[in-house]
Amino acid sequence: MATLPARPDAPLALTMGDPAGIGPELAIYAWRDRAIDALPPFALYGDPDLMRGTAKRIAPEIQIELVSDARAAAAVFMRALPVVSIPLARPAQPGQPDSGNGEATVLAIRRAVEDVAKGLAAGIVTNPIAKSVLYSAGFKHPGHTEYLGALARELWPSEPAHPVMMIAAPVLRVVPVTIHVPLKAVPGLLTAEKIVEAARIVAVALKRDFGIARPRLAITGLNPHAGEDGALGSEEQDTIAPAIAALLSEGFDVTGPHSADTLFHAAARETYDAVLAMYHDQALIPIKTLAFDEGVNVTLGLPFVRTSPDHGTAFGIAGKGVASATSLKAALKLAAGMCARRARASVP
Amino acid sequence: MATLPARPDAPLALTMGDPAGIGPELAIYAWRDRAIDALPPFALYGDPDLMRGTAKRIAPEIQIELVSDARAAAAVFMRALPVVSIPLARPAQPGQPDSGNGEATVLAIRRAVEDVAKGLAAGIVTNPIAKSVLYSAGFKHPGHTEYLGALARELWPSEPAHPVMMIAAPVLRVVPVTIHVPLKAVPGLLTAEKIVEAARIVAVALKRDFGIARPRLAITGLNPHAGEDGALGSEEQDTIAPAIAALLSEGFDVTGPHSADTLFHAAARETYDAVLAMYHDQALIPIKTLAFDEGVNVTLGLPFVRTSPDHGTAFGIAGKGVASATSLKAALKLAAGMCARRARASVP
Repeated sequence: MATLPARPDAPLALTMGDPAGIGPELAIYAWRDRAIDALPPFALYGDPDLMRGTAKRIAPEIQIELVSDARAAAAVFMRALPVVSIPLARPAQPGQPDSGNGEATVLAIRRAVEDVAKGLAAGIVTNPIAKSVLYSAGFKHPGHTEYLGALARELWPSEPAHPVMMIAAPVLRVVPVTIHVPLKAVPGLLTAEKIVEAARIVAVALKRDFGIARPRLAITGLNPHAGEDGALGSEEQDTIAPAIAALLSEGFDVTGPHSADTLFHAAARETYDAVLAMYHDQALIPIKTLAFDEGVNVTLGLPFVRTSPDHGTAFGIAGKGVASATSLKAALKLAAGMCARRARASVP
Repeated sequence: MATLPARPDAPLALTMGDPAGIGPELAIYAWRDRAIDALPPFALYGDPDLMRGTAKRIAPEIQIELVSDARAAAAVFMRALPVVSIPLARPAQPGQPDSGNGEATVLAIRRAVEDVAKGLAAGIVTNPIAKSVLYSAGFKHPGHTEYLGALARELWPSEPAHPVMMIAAPVLRVVPVTIHVPLKAVPGLLTAEKIVEAARIVAVALKRDFGIARPRLAITGLNPHAGEDGALGSEEQDTIAPAIAALLSEGFDVTGPHSADTLFHAAARETYDAVLAMYHDQALIPIKTLAFDEGVNVTLGLPFVRTSPDHGTAFGIAGKGVASATSLKAALKLAAGMCARRARASVP
């Protein structure tokens, strides 16, 4: 089966995320601000009563309207928040996660991806989930992204699916090669193959989804001063430089290994389109320092477009009306742009 | 022997650094801009012919005047660049380091510190040296800072000398607990004792030298998300949290272990006066991202004030008249302020 054509004319599918987190209220803020923030149309995949109750508390003027799928939301979006109904098992209490609602949380994600596969949604934007809540509900995947990888393999069996996390903001794009592992495990997990594979996926995505004709990738070293010619560590010489040589021989525009500390100031950022970093904090410190609210989590390497706000469920402030929708709005805009560029790129 | 009183009324002693690096030209730029940048008076400890030759190339209007020590420079500073003569063995060629001049490079540092000990200089500012050049000249210390520690123990035998590196800029101050070691060695090198000792020295310095009455220290975790309650690493629970508990019990205002990625944006920076980070890039990425040119390297924990520009010898651009003196100027200003505050603090 070939990839279905991307449908940039369909709205996006936005999942509710954990119903006790800030996802539902962020969706309401985004819909309320759709005109002033020039947001693309979307349908919320989640529980209609949850959305009605949340709206009543924080924005009572807002109307909710049920739709069958994201595509059907196009006709509704200007007058009401379109909701594709995924009913919860029990009413959700803000800030009080309930594993009884884990199944509906996961089903919202599945339905959103299925609708992309059917051409009924352009791409998906996911609100945050809490892994521990889903684990108690029997969820078997390590996290959100791995579940999306599994759905991709199921629904697009002939397409490659190697999820790679990018955090993107207007000032910087970063991709960590290793992510949620203890720091001491990082040196042992790095291989030239992993670096090459991540770099290839990033370069393809920058071209197809971000519209950059010849993407420039900067690759960090692992050690202080990128190892200082071996004096401060050997991974640059043993692993990272060979990966860079392989990528250059394949025609990619990559540089490095760079000292990570001098790679993120304004002048340095002019020299690349994205940074491939070796571990979590090396990638996340600079982007969260420069663009704390605007970062968007983008999953590259999937047969569909997926973005997500770069924060968690924030149970501590859920329902209080103080959460910021800045990152979700940026995630919606970025997803819409990626869908449009991917569609244009796939025109023969 | 008690500490000699700091002499904030004496000028600073500025070492020439590697004579083939950018140190000599930076000193000339700083002296030329002394009025517009409101720089404190200083004497350059180095070779008079080197300084005359450098001035001739990049700022021929500048006069050089020999002085016996930094204190004597006070009467000279407004009309000429005061130089305390430390003759080179051979004429220096910009960009071509020469181990034959290593002895003079090291002697300039020693003379500067000796003059502080004699009350003839307020404090020292050091231009960059190249360790490999000094090693070939028989230098036995791992680096600049360790040499200063040895001089401190020799010249102030009754004072503690535990050099701790801080990088300070107007927007942020950071202190890495481990510095120039391979990343994979970091977890094994971290101990609660090291964290406690570094934090104590930083807190004392922030009070005495930076004029902060009750310094607030934020301490990072080692792992992503500060270990996420042990799911992503155990060093937070085993090492960092016990260090924080010990510091709290001693009355220090410390918080942590914090996720490093969310600790450096503008709102977070309002909550502390300095960050104690676990390794080089965790500390240096944020400060070089936010303040690439303005960072100053400050050595805390010594019986004298020492600052340094936060860059290397830059042999590649030495002598070309393109080096930026921004960091050296910031280092001079910061040193003068530290000397003045330390003197005030020591008044009974």
